[in-house]
Amino acid sequence: MELNAQSVEAIVRRVVAQMDSTAQTAGTIPIGISNRHIHLSREDLDTLFGKGYELTPLKDLSQPGQYACKEQCTLVGPSMRAIEGVRILGPLRRQSQVEISVTDSFTLKVKPPVRESGSLEGSAPITIIGPKGIVTLREGCIIANRHIHMTPADAATFGVKDGDYIDVDAFSGSKKTRWFDVQIRVSDKFHLEMHVDTDDANAAGLKNGSVVTVVKP
Amino acid sequence: MELNAQSVEAIVRRVVAQMDSTAQTAGTIPIGISNRHIHLSREDLDTLFGKGYELTPLKDLSQPGQYACKEQCTLVGPSMRAIEGVRILGPLRRQSQVEISVTDSFTLKVKPPVRESGSLEGSAPITIIGPKGIVTLREGCIIANRHIHMTPADAATFGVKDGDYIDVDAFSGSKKTRWFDVQIRVSDKFHLEMHVDTDDANAAGLKNGSVVTVVKP
Repeated sequence: MELNAQSVEAIVRRVVAQMDSTAQTAGTIPIGISNRHIHLSREDLDTLFGKGYELTPLKDLSQPGQYACKEQCTLVGPSMRAIEGVRILGPLRRQSQVEISVTDSFTLKVKPPVRESGSLEGSAPITIIGPKGIVTLREGCIIANRHIHMTPADAATFGVKDGDYIDVDAFSGSKKTRWFDVQIRVSDKFHLEMHVDTDDANAAGLKNGSVVTVVKP
Repeated sequence: MELNAQSVEAIVRRVVAQMDSTAQTAGTIPIGISNRHIHLSREDLDTLFGKGYELTPLKDLSQPGQYACKEQCTLVGPSMRAIEGVRILGPLRRQSQVEISVTDSFTLKVKPPVRESGSLEGSAPITIIGPKGIVTLREGCIIANRHIHMTPADAATFGVKDGDYIDVDAFSGSKKTRWFDVQIRVSDKFHLEMHVDTDDANAAGLKNGSVVTVVKP
């Protein structure tokens, strides 16, 4: 086997997947807490930051290929109150998407539905303010559903498949909580992690790195 | 039976208790969402609003004898960020107590423990700013535990007693959730209601008037 950048990456991925499998055997899934954030389309990035603008990656996220950017925007809604410093995540997407919490929705007076990422039809309108322009999305604002990213190997270990819904116990925080109907998302590009928003994490008293356990049916 | 103010009150209480029992029979408990708030001692009210100041009742709360006041204060913590417009609840108490959410605790950078109301020993310090003065509590800031107020009749119906801990399902919101270790508090002065903070309510997508059901052991 020739050792080039691509093969090294493939090996590292396999080792990491193996480490994930070990974690699964212990029956726990690490938590990743998603603060409010924005995914942008090429067109909306142009409007907000200027024609041809390129995002500046700041930090890789746990899901491979996803990264937080230096760029931030301000959100506003019908309340005429602003939430400032909302992080842009890369890479660019086909359609812009704004993910906030229910707590944020009261600040802005918007009524986003609970949705899986990318499922934006009929979701809430919202306005994004950038340094070079303003975009009002007709739809695109959601409260992200509770979901778990995992590899096909993880899915086999847990006995689930892409699109399944399971229940998990969040017992490692200060307030013991069970979350029902957590969506399973399987891809060999994923890394084992359950994503919840700040409302869920704060209600259960969880931090990044806290773990949950799958409830046996 | 002579009909005076006292006997009428006793009858109304009994009728209301009966109505509560009907609700219990259906197996549901209504939710009351507690936003951040402040209980003050006589001494701290003097410091914040001026010697001999009297609170102005604004609205009765669901628990008999408790009321929201016109008066509000500002909270600050080591973050040097302020949370303004925090409601004072009456009547006065022996010791001042500030109840906030985990979300608020990040804004203020305070680390309050999850506690039942009144259990303040070793709880977090916090600063309250009033129109006439500032009070820094050495302890008194907590995250209120999840708890259910009920009458002795309610307790009999549910088969629980004061100080018990039970589990409840919050299924009427947008994200199905189970709360474990919910404290039972029984008094003939109480009205059947489960109290949760804004983090819990928002995480489960509940509103005031939403209901929970007791999980059978």
